[in-house]
Amino acid sequence: MADNMAYQQHLSREKVFRDPVHNYIHVPDQLILDLINTKEFQRLRRIKQLGTALFTFHGAEHSRFGHSLGVYEIARQICENFARNYPTKTPGDGGWDNSERLVVLCAALLHDIGHGAYSHTFEHIFHTDHEALTVKILTSPETEVNQVLRQVSDEFPQQVASVITHDYPNPQVVQIISSQIDADRMDYLLRDSYLTGTEYGKFDLTRILRVMRPYQDGISFAMDGMHAVEDYVLSRFQMYLQVYFHPVSRAMEVILEHLLQRAKYLYEHQQLDAAFVPYLLVPFLENDFTLNDYLNLDDGVLTTYFIQWQSASDPILSDLAQRFLNRRPFKSAQVTPATVHLLPELKRLVAAVGYDADYYTAINNSFDLPYDAYDPHAANPKTQIEISQPDGSLIELSTLSDVVAAISGKMTGDERFFFPKEMLAETTDNLFASTYQEFQHHILNDALID
Amino acid sequence: MADNMAYQQHLSREKVFRDPVHNYIHVPDQLILDLINTKEFQRLRRIKQLGTALFTFHGAEHSRFGHSLGVYEIARQICENFARNYPTKTPGDGGWDNSERLVVLCAALLHDIGHGAYSHTFEHIFHTDHEALTVKILTSPETEVNQVLRQVSDEFPQQVASVITHDYPNPQVVQIISSQIDADRMDYLLRDSYLTGTEYGKFDLTRILRVMRPYQDGISFAMDGMHAVEDYVLSRFQMYLQVYFHPVSRAMEVILEHLLQRAKYLYEHQQLDAAFVPYLLVPFLENDFTLNDYLNLDDGVLTTYFIQWQSASDPILSDLAQRFLNRRPFKSAQVTPATVHLLPELKRLVAAVGYDADYYTAINNSFDLPYDAYDPHAANPKTQIEISQPDGSLIELSTLSDVVAAISGKMTGDERFFFPKEMLAETTDNLFASTYQEFQHHILNDALID
Amino acid sequence: MADNMAYQQHLSREKVFRDPVHNYIHVPDQLILDLINTKEFQRLRRIKQLGTALFTFHGAEHSRFGHSLGVYEIARQICENFARNYPTKTPGDGGWDNSERLVVLCAALLHDIGHGAYSHTFEHIFHTDHEALTVKILTSPETEVNQVLRQVSDEFPQQVASVITHDYPNPQVVQIISSQIDADRMDYLLRDSYLTGTEYGKFDLTRILRVMRPYQDGISFAMDGMHAVEDYVLSRFQMYLQVYFHPVSRAMEVILEHLLQRAKYLYEHQQLDAAFVPYLLVPFLENDFTLNDYLNLDDGVLTTYFIQWQSASDPILSDLAQRFLNRRPFKSAQVTPATVHLLPELKRLVAAVGYDADYYTAINNSFDLPYDAYDPHAANPKTQIEISQPDGSLIELSTLSDVVAAISGKMTGDERFFFPKEMLAETTDNLFASTYQEFQHHILNDALID
Amino acid sequence: MADNMAYQQHLSREKVFRDPVHNYIHVPDQLILDLINTKEFQRLRRIKQLGTALFTFHGAEHSRFGHSLGVYEIARQICENFARNYPTKTPGDGGWDNSERLVVLCAALLHDIGHGAYSHTFEHIFHTDHEALTVKILTSPETEVNQVLRQVSDEFPQQVASVITHDYPNPQVVQIISSQIDADRMDYLLRDSYLTGTEYGKFDLTRILRVMRPYQDGISFAMDGMHAVEDYVLSRFQMYLQVYFHPVSRAMEVILEHLLQRAKYLYEHQQLDAAFVPYLLVPFLENDFTLNDYLNLDDGVLTTYFIQWQSASDPILSDLAQRFLNRRPFKSAQVTPATVHLLPELKRLVAAVGYDADYYTAINNSFDLPYDAYDPHAANPKTQIEISQPDGSLIELSTLSDVVAAISGKMTGDERFFFPKEMLAETTDNLFASTYQEFQHHILNDALID
Repeated sequence: MADNMAYQQHLSREKVFRDPVHNYIHVPDQLILDLINTKEFQRLRRIKQLGTALFTFHGAEHSRFGHSLGVYEIARQICENFARNYPTKTPGDGGWDNSERLVVLCAALLHDIGHGAYSHTFEHIFHTDHEALTVKILTSPETEVNQVLRQVSDEFPQQVASVITHDYPNPQVVQIISSQIDADRMDYLLRDSYLTGTEYGKFDLTRILRVMRPYQDGISFAMDGMHAVEDYVLSRFQMYLQVYFHPVSRAMEVILEHLLQRAKYLYEHQQLDAAFVPYLLVPFLENDFTLNDYLNLDDGVLTTYFIQWQSASDPILSDLAQRFLNRRPFKSAQVTPATVHLLPELKRLVAAVGYDADYYTAINNSFDLPYDAYDPHAANPKTQIEISQPDGSLIELSTLSDVVAAISGKMTGDERFFFPKEMLAETTDNLFASTYQEFQHHILNDALID
Repeated sequence: MADNMAYQQHLSREKVFRDPVHNYIHVPDQLILDLINTKEFQRLRRIKQLGTALFTFHGAEHSRFGHSLGVYEIARQICENFARNYPTKTPGDGGWDNSERLVVLCAALLHDIGHGAYSHTFEHIFHTDHEALTVKILTSPETEVNQVLRQVSDEFPQQVASVITHDYPNPQVVQIISSQIDADRMDYLLRDSYLTGTEYGKFDLTRILRVMRPYQDGISFAMDGMHAVEDYVLSRFQMYLQVYFHPVSRAMEVILEHLLQRAKYLYEHQQLDAAFVPYLLVPFLENDFTLNDYLNLDDGVLTTYFIQWQSASDPILSDLAQRFLNRRPFKSAQVTPATVHLLPELKRLVAAVGYDADYYTAINNSFDLPYDAYDPHAANPKTQIEISQPDGSLIELSTLSDVVAAISGKMTGDERFFFPKEMLAETTDNLFASTYQEFQHHILNDALID
Repeated sequence: MADNMAYQQHLSREKVFRDPVHNYIHVPDQLILDLINTKEFQRLRRIKQLGTALFTFHGAEHSRFGHSLGVYEIARQICENFARNYPTKTPGDGGWDNSERLVVLCAALLHDIGHGAYSHTFEHIFHTDHEALTVKILTSPETEVNQVLRQVSDEFPQQVASVITHDYPNPQVVQIISSQIDADRMDYLLRDSYLTGTEYGKFDLTRILRVMRPYQDGISFAMDGMHAVEDYVLSRFQMYLQVYFHPVSRAMEVILEHLLQRAKYLYEHQQLDAAFVPYLLVPFLENDFTLNDYLNLDDGVLTTYFIQWQSASDPILSDLAQRFLNRRPFKSAQVTPATVHLLPELKRLVAAVGYDADYYTAINNSFDLPYDAYDPHAANPKTQIEISQPDGSLIELSTLSDVVAAISGKMTGDERFFFPKEMLAETTDNLFASTYQEFQHHILNDALID
Repeated sequence: MADNMAYQQHLSREKVFRDPVHNYIHVPDQLILDLINTKEFQRLRRIKQLGTALFTFHGAEHSRFGHSLGVYEIARQICENFARNYPTKTPGDGGWDNSERLVVLCAALLHDIGHGAYSHTFEHIFHTDHEALTVKILTSPETEVNQVLRQVSDEFPQQVASVITHDYPNPQVVQIISSQIDADRMDYLLRDSYLTGTEYGKFDLTRILRVMRPYQDGISFAMDGMHAVEDYVLSRFQMYLQVYFHPVSRAMEVILEHLLQRAKYLYEHQQLDAAFVPYLLVPFLENDFTLNDYLNLDDGVLTTYFIQWQSASDPILSDLAQRFLNRRPFKSAQVTPATVHLLPELKRLVAAVGYDADYYTAINNSFDLPYDAYDPHAANPKTQIEISQPDGSLIELSTLSDVVAAISGKMTGDERFFFPKEMLAETTDNLFASTYQEFQHHILNDALID
């Protein structure tokens, strides 16, 4: 809760942002407008929301900027509903304390502020951590975001950060921002669905917002909205299988990862031509970067270096840069425990026709737990979705829904082996014909076979 | 018309691209698929369709890649309709000759292939010409696009180019790609409308495609679709006024232009610190660039240099780079012939508080002719929209539609004076208080006043 | 304004109605819920919104019930916006007095309560008046609607009625319900567009509601929403031309009118077989009906009699009933002042092949004034649309918009001559061949010609 | 397959019907246009698709006419796809024989032609059978439909009928019209979803049509469309639970059924006042009706009699008529095997306060099997959904999909006890206070309890 109320003034006239998903994003608070105008928040325009997914769904070119506004807008609507319909009357009655509103809105708006270019892959190579960086951007006095937040109170930046790290004391506040059905997920499903042009991510947001209500230990959903919640869980399940885990997007991610890996290797071994040293990446190659170094990176910076690397003398660096820029994805096939033993042999065959198997093959698994009931013994126990009955009692979602029960607690996704498309070439009059044929014998119906 | 039919094979199974605007883009031809896979076409993913419009409408982050696919898809549907319903039977009967199909599809797909990063502004500073570059990309043997096109015939690249330059002999072909109601405009109105989240650009594409028909001298529209065509003309009129000419987007374009201007000036006067020389821009600063140099540029390359320039020692370069990256648009006011005489005085006031008026003020006019009937005396006479009557006679659109007549032949848009937002500051205890006040006296209701 | 506040309680939990156009209709007031549950309001489910339009646009089967809810919802949103952003502070300051809210909501919900089956046609034949009947339903103690309204105060029913008859003192209240851009028109354009599946009626409702604001003498619209208002005016213009005035719907209306006319004639001349006397219509045939008689009529009652009349002995009654039920529209052609002189001859030709020209031909004109600035000399002067400038001054819409100026003050529509489709038959070996040919010589390009 | 090809001509210009769900319904065949223009098909405009559902979802006022056109349109697109991509080459190769096209289109268009007003309830009371009536309408020489069909060949009406009764030899043809994923279900899910304004029924029709393909024994779906099929199954599951089985719609159906039951009882016991005898219903009350009698009934005819019955002397008939017309649904509570024993007691309590329990209480169960794999031992074995693998092998859907497996073979729905809302009245100072209280003690959380 914000201590100092001085900054919590409303704008004389509400400001709006036109949004293709929510129609309008409503901003009645000066604080929120000031946060949007910080350079750290504006940077999100240069970080794509879905990374390499645009190579499969060409419409998915949207940035984290619009998504962040969308999460804020959903959180704003939740607070408005709670304040109108479920205000707390006595402490601990499970109602909503509207002095939490600003901390919710700031956490919603800024939850992704630490994300960088192609975060997942970049973190893997350079050992950065977007969550730690989010906290740093909120709490370092040097950032514009921090300067704006401090105008509420000295503790406010840390309070907002603690919502994002799940340490904030009020579980209602935390669950609006982060739970199995939160403002973040609801926005990205709708937005990614809108931009990719797929139908899978659509669900009835209005109805879910209507049936959402606070209780002592968090957020619950009224029984008459149970099927809208069920539909949301299924939408998320399908978006993972159909969009987020698409083999072609993952193939492009593999290429990106190997490309950065190669650049790092060459830099560390002093084999990167001087003209191709990536100025803005050097602090990360040196493993000695400031927050400002991090904030200077974006998708365009990386692709600028890739454009330069196309002409590098190292053939692997040059080839992978071209494959990434010109969209030449690897092909892939599913791997199961029964076929995983084939991998060394397959890599050997790829190497046999002249590819460096370290850079030209990969194993990638993409799994998600679409929904899970609370399990205290789990590595990362999840807040379960609670459905409230007319008499006030709560029942966990998968108890009520056969279809949610069917996917509850089950990891969903697959593990795939990636390799150059050239391995599937028709081979009649080719030097490597027999190697290609041997390779191709191990693949049927999109999977490895013995 | 394509001479050699060898390459004109259909794919064994039609390929589709999921598209948020057209649902699916259908690709039954190997030729089209090969063109999409060229590096020159893939580069379009890195060039934004609407440049600085995203600073006003945050959803407008889409690239020219999706738009190019969309124009292709509309052209494909037009050809399919013409081939089924209006095939030519005897030469010169005004029917559709379906051997023109491939040249139409290629011209539709590739009409924007020569566009570069922030084309409008870039061309202004560096004297490039995206139409000439389009022709070059189509006809230079070094490009992948040319190599694919040549598989149809040696003349085919030049034929496709001539459609884009309006020199192709068959006016039906030219008008599908370029006229006052063509596949290009129809796609961008729908797409920009979808991405910005505005309603203005929507019109009834299906109906327009249904009533479109070839005749001797081009394309006409059946009378019972007249109102759908009218609605399209109005949609375009409104998108220009509401989206394309938005003062904030133009303010950001002004900043971009002045930023590039400043970099060019510093480079030419050897005042650009060595660390900040933009490697990939040098050929343009030297005015000596190859086609490959041009194809290496994209939006991300420019913003990468802007990120670096933020730390440059030149205060103007550094400040403008920050204004662009962090979205600090200039403010503006309408200028009319009656108030244009105020400009020197206003520039003087901007300079008086310490801004270099050459870089911190600008005049920008944005005008468009939303529709015009054919006028042989015009500098650039337009193909008018013809409505065909049940008995086959043609009537020009504005003759039939009062609302189209109202905007026909009238330039629409405005001229604006841009200046730093700081000039509108409240000024009670400021050194420059009287200067600011004097400046502010000249502005009322979004316009200059005496 | 409601005197007695006793009844103005909010429901403990807001009630909602799922609506395809507005997503949800929100009902927080017990009063509104009680009005919806009256039998007079439920009757609106049995009265189609667009009468015979469904014979052209088969989707247009919706009733006045959903439309009435939609008008209420738009009015509710307007009041909510006004109360939040423009509350009155001192009497006469042009702000919004929220004690007007209930009278607005009731007038919005009930504005069509007096409409009957195929109102336009029915009124023409039986001299009923749906506006007078609306007032009667509101103010007669026998109705459930009146009983609910009286719980607010004894004067409340009359106050609501006076809004509908434009006699209520507060012009803001009247203009929300009835002006050139009111809740009624905004709902029907969107709803009719949604149900017919046409695009013409779509406009940006959210934006219009955002820029709407009260002033001393009514409602105005902020300048930055001017184009949304312009788009609304054009949408209405196009819906009239494309949907409401469609020749086939009007042809079916002509048949309906002649069918009722024939039944009335037969009844008055005691030629209607006893078995076919329409029980529920008798009070109207006798021109002596009660309010209850009127409320007993609906679309289904009329078609039930038409079904019976198909077997009547009078050939005209039976034939017209079949034409209406089985959708056998008359054909038509435009009439202009230059061709109106042809009508006697055309009727003669229709009669010559055996049709009773009184029942088998008709002149029907459908004209609308899509927009007009206020003209004190007009028969029925209209409240013009005012656009408010940043400094508060008001400018009439057509002064600012070329496209609105183009249609302002101009009657739009046409006059058509209707006749049996059989007159267009191919005639080679027919008894009446030469008559048909003579008739057909007078029609070209959908119009009469000399 | 149609024997005589004479009638199978295409229209010179394709006719279209504007449709809110499919945008346009395309009719290139004279035969289809003639069928649409028959009086039996036009009658479908007067039969609502969803009966009493409009009392819950007020938008659901659409008739079977639009749905029938929609099923036709989907079937047309399936045939077009099959003919282009999967034509048979040798008999028995599993490809599509396009000479089946017309029989498919006619069966699709006419599959509901025998439906009457409030079919489900009407059939229950009057022992009519809409499927038998469909066959009769197709095959009786007296109907216009039969006269049109016979122009193809003498056998053609019977062939079309046999598709609808599942007796047609080609399983591909039968499955397009009737299977667990057929043109009928796909249209009604989308259409009912559009009209009710709910999201549940939406799925990706375009994708499903793309992956649909014929094989020897019917229709299968390609593996890469598996999730679109899964989404369709879930959509159907949710529409049943959320829309089709809604307790309020069922409550209105109960009232309708008891109202007709009462009228029948009174008629049979000569207690129906002469003025209230329902002329067009008499043949059904006498259980001696012709096809023409049946075709004369529609929704409006029934409500016309209900309007008259409101004034009948029998209090039950009059009261139930008012409840139906004015929407006064019964309340209800779920019954389980554990609580079914309470019903006699609850009925006794309803009777104790003065209601005739036969007319004022009811048990209604609504169950559906959302999906089932083929089970030869089932009473009514279903054609399972087959997913085809890249190598051509088929796998049944629930084998591949956890969520489909979760609902496969399980009856979904509930059994409810219906009673007058008055039983839930607050009862402090009421004669029957203790009876009401006793009744209310048996209901908690929407269910009966001991």
